[in-house]
Amino acid sequence: MSTDFQPVSGMDLPRFAGVPTFMRLPHVPPGHEKYAEVEIGIVGLPWDGGTTNRPGARHGPRALRDASTMIRAMNAATGVEPFVRRRCADLGDVGPNPADLMDTLERVTAYYTDLAAAGIRPLTAGGDHLSSLPILRALAKDRPLGMVHFDAHTDLYRGYFGGTKYTHGTPFRRAVEEGLLDPKRVVQIGIRGTAYDMEDRDFAKAHGIRVIPIEECVDRGWGDVMDEAMEIAGEGPTYVSYDIDFVDPAFAPGTGTPEIGGPNSLDAQRVVRRLAGLDIVGADVVEVSPPFDQGGATAWLGASILFELLCVMV
Amino acid sequence: MSTDFQPVSGMDLPRFAGVPTFMRLPHVPPGHEKYAEVEIGIVGLPWDGGTTNRPGARHGPRALRDASTMIRAMNAATGVEPFVRRRCADLGDVGPNPADLMDTLERVTAYYTDLAAAGIRPLTAGGDHLSSLPILRALAKDRPLGMVHFDAHTDLYRGYFGGTKYTHGTPFRRAVEEGLLDPKRVVQIGIRGTAYDMEDRDFAKAHGIRVIPIEECVDRGWGDVMDEAMEIAGEGPTYVSYDIDFVDPAFAPGTGTPEIGGPNSLDAQRVVRRLAGLDIVGADVVEVSPPFDQGGATAWLGASILFELLCVMV
Amino acid sequence: MSTDFQPVSGMDLPRFAGVPTFMRLPHVPPGHEKYAEVEIGIVGLPWDGGTTNRPGARHGPRALRDASTMIRAMNAATGVEPFVRRRCADLGDVGPNPADLMDTLERVTAYYTDLAAAGIRPLTAGGDHLSSLPILRALAKDRPLGMVHFDAHTDLYRGYFGGTKYTHGTPFRRAVEEGLLDPKRVVQIGIRGTAYDMEDRDFAKAHGIRVIPIEECVDRGWGDVMDEAMEIAGEGPTYVSYDIDFVDPAFAPGTGTPEIGGPNSLDAQRVVRRLAGLDIVGADVVEVSPPFDQGGATAWLGASILFELLCVMV
Amino acid sequence: MSTDFQPVSGMDLPRFAGVPTFMRLPHVPPGHEKYAEVEIGIVGLPWDGGTTNRPGARHGPRALRDASTMIRAMNAATGVEPFVRRRCADLGDVGPNPADLMDTLERVTAYYTDLAAAGIRPLTAGGDHLSSLPILRALAKDRPLGMVHFDAHTDLYRGYFGGTKYTHGTPFRRAVEEGLLDPKRVVQIGIRGTAYDMEDRDFAKAHGIRVIPIEECVDRGWGDVMDEAMEIAGEGPTYVSYDIDFVDPAFAPGTGTPEIGGPNSLDAQRVVRRLAGLDIVGADVVEVSPPFDQGGATAWLGASILFELLCVMV
Amino acid sequence: MSTDFQPVSGMDLPRFAGVPTFMRLPHVPPGHEKYAEVEIGIVGLPWDGGTTNRPGARHGPRALRDASTMIRAMNAATGVEPFVRRRCADLGDVGPNPADLMDTLERVTAYYTDLAAAGIRPLTAGGDHLSSLPILRALAKDRPLGMVHFDAHTDLYRGYFGGTKYTHGTPFRRAVEEGLLDPKRVVQIGIRGTAYDMEDRDFAKAHGIRVIPIEECVDRGWGDVMDEAMEIAGEGPTYVSYDIDFVDPAFAPGTGTPEIGGPNSLDAQRVVRRLAGLDIVGADVVEVSPPFDQGGATAWLGASILFELLCVMV
Amino acid sequence: MSTDFQPVSGMDLPRFAGVPTFMRLPHVPPGHEKYAEVEIGIVGLPWDGGTTNRPGARHGPRALRDASTMIRAMNAATGVEPFVRRRCADLGDVGPNPADLMDTLERVTAYYTDLAAAGIRPLTAGGDHLSSLPILRALAKDRPLGMVHFDAHTDLYRGYFGGTKYTHGTPFRRAVEEGLLDPKRVVQIGIRGTAYDMEDRDFAKAHGIRVIPIEECVDRGWGDVMDEAMEIAGEGPTYVSYDIDFVDPAFAPGTGTPEIGGPNSLDAQRVVRRLAGLDIVGADVVEVSPPFDQGGATAWLGASILFELLCVMV
Repeated sequence: MSTDFQPVSGMDLPRFAGVPTFMRLPHVPPGHEKYAEVEIGIVGLPWDGGTTNRPGARHGPRALRDASTMIRAMNAATGVEPFVRRRCADLGDVGPNPADLMDTLERVTAYYTDLAAAGIRPLTAGGDHLSSLPILRALAKDRPLGMVHFDAHTDLYRGYFGGTKYTHGTPFRRAVEEGLLDPKRVVQIGIRGTAYDMEDRDFAKAHGIRVIPIEECVDRGWGDVMDEAMEIAGEGPTYVSYDIDFVDPAFAPGTGTPEIGGPNSLDAQRVVRRLAGLDIVGADVVEVSPPFDQGGATAWLGASILFELLCVMV
Repeated sequence: MSTDFQPVSGMDLPRFAGVPTFMRLPHVPPGHEKYAEVEIGIVGLPWDGGTTNRPGARHGPRALRDASTMIRAMNAATGVEPFVRRRCADLGDVGPNPADLMDTLERVTAYYTDLAAAGIRPLTAGGDHLSSLPILRALAKDRPLGMVHFDAHTDLYRGYFGGTKYTHGTPFRRAVEEGLLDPKRVVQIGIRGTAYDMEDRDFAKAHGIRVIPIEECVDRGWGDVMDEAMEIAGEGPTYVSYDIDFVDPAFAPGTGTPEIGGPNSLDAQRVVRRLAGLDIVGADVVEVSPPFDQGGATAWLGASILFELLCVMV
Repeated sequence: MSTDFQPVSGMDLPRFAGVPTFMRLPHVPPGHEKYAEVEIGIVGLPWDGGTTNRPGARHGPRALRDASTMIRAMNAATGVEPFVRRRCADLGDVGPNPADLMDTLERVTAYYTDLAAAGIRPLTAGGDHLSSLPILRALAKDRPLGMVHFDAHTDLYRGYFGGTKYTHGTPFRRAVEEGLLDPKRVVQIGIRGTAYDMEDRDFAKAHGIRVIPIEECVDRGWGDVMDEAMEIAGEGPTYVSYDIDFVDPAFAPGTGTPEIGGPNSLDAQRVVRRLAGLDIVGADVVEVSPPFDQGGATAWLGASILFELLCVMV
Repeated sequence: MSTDFQPVSGMDLPRFAGVPTFMRLPHVPPGHEKYAEVEIGIVGLPWDGGTTNRPGARHGPRALRDASTMIRAMNAATGVEPFVRRRCADLGDVGPNPADLMDTLERVTAYYTDLAAAGIRPLTAGGDHLSSLPILRALAKDRPLGMVHFDAHTDLYRGYFGGTKYTHGTPFRRAVEEGLLDPKRVVQIGIRGTAYDMEDRDFAKAHGIRVIPIEECVDRGWGDVMDEAMEIAGEGPTYVSYDIDFVDPAFAPGTGTPEIGGPNSLDAQRVVRRLAGLDIVGADVVEVSPPFDQGGATAWLGASILFELLCVMV
Repeated sequence: MSTDFQPVSGMDLPRFAGVPTFMRLPHVPPGHEKYAEVEIGIVGLPWDGGTTNRPGARHGPRALRDASTMIRAMNAATGVEPFVRRRCADLGDVGPNPADLMDTLERVTAYYTDLAAAGIRPLTAGGDHLSSLPILRALAKDRPLGMVHFDAHTDLYRGYFGGTKYTHGTPFRRAVEEGLLDPKRVVQIGIRGTAYDMEDRDFAKAHGIRVIPIEECVDRGWGDVMDEAMEIAGEGPTYVSYDIDFVDPAFAPGTGTPEIGGPNSLDAQRVVRRLAGLDIVGADVVEVSPPFDQGGATAWLGASILFELLCVMV
Repeated sequence: MSTDFQPVSGMDLPRFAGVPTFMRLPHVPPGHEKYAEVEIGIVGLPWDGGTTNRPGARHGPRALRDASTMIRAMNAATGVEPFVRRRCADLGDVGPNPADLMDTLERVTAYYTDLAAAGIRPLTAGGDHLSSLPILRALAKDRPLGMVHFDAHTDLYRGYFGGTKYTHGTPFRRAVEEGLLDPKRVVQIGIRGTAYDMEDRDFAKAHGIRVIPIEECVDRGWGDVMDEAMEIAGEGPTYVSYDIDFVDPAFAPGTGTPEIGGPNSLDAQRVVRRLAGLDIVGADVVEVSPPFDQGGATAWLGASILFELLCVMV
């Protein structure tokens, strides 16, 4: 363990002080002399070009950085000290093109291709959920991945507005179609809300994606559900995608498409802790939308989930 | 099923676009050529004349309309597609007189009398809880109704401020006194908070109204409680009144008289789903107060509950 | 004057009641039987696809509709009663494609081409400032227009992010290049804020566009400046574009790119009143961004400006 | 000067500490042993029963008390030390009946009749503008009063909603009709906004009430306008009524019927200072509506105006 | 029971009216003629001098007073009527010195020493958690106390910022060191969040303080945990300290150091009710920070907890 | 000019992207290899230990950094390009001790002593106004400075709370007493609000400090007042201290001690531009308090003022 990759302690410098980086880690952007040493890179992806309803996820990374300066060094619930185990750093933000969706898709894939080539595992702070697609294009280049997906929505729709293929409601349909995900190793947890129709679920069924609605989660218990999820994901390389609207809007109001009836914040944390042992090649927390976030509650929740994800990645 | 009564899909027109009507249904006010075809009418009642504490429920209907444009066509949890089963429409608002309580009571009863005469079943977006009284006067003209009542408060008080009979704390006392409700078929669920005294509960006991405090709901489980509620309401014509302050203020902050210790949003939905099979002659969601609603969370919850009510009415 | 096109009075139905249309006018969308009778159509354009900074203008039309229900029938300052003079209506919203910028540009131009063909003059509630470009493509098909442009920014930039041509910082550069505007008849009023460089102003100078910085406005007086503006616009057909960030952010916080140092709300109104006599073929109020609007102040200001524009269009 | 009626200093006890009374003065309600010694009584009137649009002024007195604890002992601009010159006290609130308008009118008049009988001059913190009517009924019992009235609206309308006589849009029509005001000694300053019609202004003209629109105020200058106002009010007993919506909503967002285009906060103070020398028998600040007050700005402005009024009353 | 110590009823005077005291009780500050009659005194301690992260708890007492005026006379869940059982009063605020931490510690201890000498049991509304230390210095002068402590944090740290001994993260370390608490009779409930290290828990273990993490609370059930807590506290004199950040931030956002994963509001109440029978010599609710409190939810929760504490103290 | 010290352009990377530093400049903390090259260092001082009323200025630097990423490279009003003229950098934050005022005073003075020794001129983002004192102790070590001071308050009080010498109401009294300021070269502009007494002004008079109340500023005109200010400051080394409460709270609500009646945002900028030519050895913007800042307006204003100050420092 290098002391270079340690966060600043709130015991030394108050947590409201200093230039805010993710979890107060050093800022090591591509090109930085220590970039090659990084094992896990936390990346901001400030983009909401695929948003069909309320925008603002482009402001997510900055709000998550700000909130994350309240994170301390140790996960008291599990005893994990991520910054001791791995060299972690804030890699900065991927630069999007807010006025050109296709250009941004390419920029993101290029960024993550380089990152993967450097041997860094990414933990991404989104961004809307379309963000996951160009990341998967980089990470799943060689073989399809499994995925544990926490969300209120399946994001498996065919298209919107008369055929538009790329929105935040379609990334995993595209990913399956492009062979980036192995649908048999994909599980979607917490699905709920009103539906346009059953077209997304029909697609899931047809391809073997396991969809677990919120009612089933609550009735069976989260522990039981997560055991099944671990079995589905199995031992292969797996991506974890965590849409903040998985959590109930009382706990996570700052998101574009809230759906009532979700889990509370403790369950929101504990389902992540259950992922320990998974071969996680990358993870993301998406759809934090600060303009709709009353008092920063969602950013703080999102930062806490980023930390939980980091603890199961190390 | 007529295509005339279908909501606009968010797949065609984004959900933030368009003049906002309830659930994006057509606006069919009294006098409209299609009024007679409506089976279930969603009505706004923008009035808070009976409010003894924090006002603002007069703004409820507009906020509920706005939020309800995020509702899609199908209840994914139950499979119900209400707009396919019944001809539903937004009937517009009843016009209140904000400076004359007695005049408003008369206006509302007149409005619902006409509506009932046209064979429309009303789903009302309030308004404070006094709203239910003039509605009941129209709907229960011929025979007393049963009632399933979700609330933190019994609203069974005798009077306020030295004898004022009509406030949002008294509607169901008046309704029992006027023979609009059959107290033996009335159940009040979720009652909690500090009390002035036991006068309201004494009245309930004396007349056979069943009051189920929140502690009992949680300890027995909502399923068990709702079974009892269904038994109490029985097979006769029943009104459902849903005060948004039934739900915990973390989930529904925008209300005039919040009481901590209520159910979460999933239970808030599921208790309504349990009403399937009831003979519902009318229903309301009341006490959504937008000026106290941080970020519109309560409006969104209220709109979601309106949709659940609609799904058990069709 | 037809009584069909009169707004509902707050003396009859309280202003918080009813389905909210612009200024409580009848909703007459394309295809409606009375569409051909409309003289001035208020149109919502819920789109922010060109936004390079803080998004949210897609929610502008709904917030403007809501606020505009506080508008009454007469302009007390000028005595104008617009709804008596012209048949005005709320035409509804143009349907954008939030995930496809080029598709939206085409949709908007098509919509306004039909509207112009029907002989309706449009008053548009945006949307971000890129909205003006597809409108101008429809309205200036036959001859270039003059323009009075209130804004903190010139919106004359060449491109962003390595060559992206269409953003809310470029519409009038494009419009000049496409021959939609006669630069000699264009005046930009209230320009201020920090600058990337002088490239936009160089373009203005080269083409004869008159740019009046805020300091000059305040030092000369708004009356004097508006006299010059009227002279520049002259007698030909003219478009009026009013970016809400023209106004100081204390009065209009809800916008994507606020710049301090702008006019107060009285001057914001009075500059519009000075346009009486201009041959206005269309007008817009853009960049109202509700997610950044504390308490709806900007929506109310924007609705008031829409009304002032309507009064000089009739 | 008695030390009994001195406010607590922020130099001794921080201004955020202590039970909040108006300006940190002693709480001397009716019945208190020192009630008879009070010369100027600050009274809260927590009532918004006459509000036709956005409610919440019932919460005004509490918010004004809270904000007023930031007031210090001396008016630095004029040198006046009101608490040294007169025995001032917080008299508490008049108890309204929120569900009965007519009952409240009587309660208020009774309260102020007793207060006047005790020789106390009242400075009232409203409450909506209907509050002024029952106060005038008590204070103008013996002879009509002059009035200096700061407002965006004339509040001279005949009635609302098919004949309702008592709303916050009608108090001064009623007061003139009841002989409580001498219309020749009434001046209304800052009038603006859209209008239902000219019916209120016709009434003003017919009775000799001077209405000064905001444009005239700004064009002539506030000093000149206030000279005229002082002349109109003359030397007789005069009431001062200050509707917080007189001030521009950027400075006073927390009110029920905001109208853009009003004065800034410095002019809002200075017009009051111009009243020095007037024979003020009572004054009020009304229409502060905390539920619509972003961050308490309006309460702080209102408290500052209360202090300015106190300084010209001593 | 004296009628002198009864709160004003909302049935008589609306709850938004009147000078706000805790639970609408009479204001009986030290020196007041009835001070000696008080049995339980509710005290405000407006101080946040020990706060290492987000400040604002100095505004807690005022917000808690304001919210507490919605409390009624009876605890409907337990039937307790505290104001009938004991003479309760609002004693006002302890005057802190916001710019001198050591001076404030002394002022607070002096205040509570006098209060204890007068035979009053204090229920304190903080203030940050350092507040508990000077209170304990007064109440535990003669013998160490037991303590039931609800919190997300142990507040047992040694020091901050290079040795600073007095912060809101250290009070109970100091209290144990000073012999004010008997560590064997101390239980800390709900502990969670990331940790600097294990130094605080090592101290707890070394001294026999029982720390119950949130996961254990939820997995065992609150009833079981509270049984253990009652056993630990035993029959001796006990202090109850309730940090509002014990509760999940969805329910209590207005606090300086929120930690997700806490209990909901019903459990937040019920754990207090379990304390019935304890020999409570004093209690506090701390860390309510109004500047971070969206819509006053935390103040209302805190006021409700103060009432629950009062009900187990009588 | 080195390309090393250039800010990132919003034309390349959207302004909402990236780790936020002041004006998107490189982060060059003490110890950094390029520290010695910096000519003007922007420093955060996150401290509010001297605040006697509403706290939160400790969060100022982070909010100012965030807002400042909207600043572009050129001052369009004056043509100044500060980053071309001088090597500017974000030096990071001074580490305060939030629980020990005296310790923090020493830390700050030590930090600025080193900075001055390195030949860097500091532009500080506070922090409350006590921040200026330890800065002056470092910068005025060798000779007293002149000062241009924009503020609503003189900050010349002797002491608070029974003799506390160090609060945000006393820094310049201390600075004069310690010989850090030459009172004859000090001018205080915009003074207003209620006063405890005249003790601060008597001190000013006795020492020759020129106090210009807001009324005089407005009546004479800001240009005339600034001419006098420049004359007072003269040609010697001068400090500029800008308390954000100088500006009217409609424009700058996020501050601890707002006073209505201040200048608008354009005058707030223009008075700084008038300082061109002054020998500025350091400057600060203080009292931005994000917890009280509705929508970030004050942070944006403060960042804009920082930029204006930078432009007159280069």
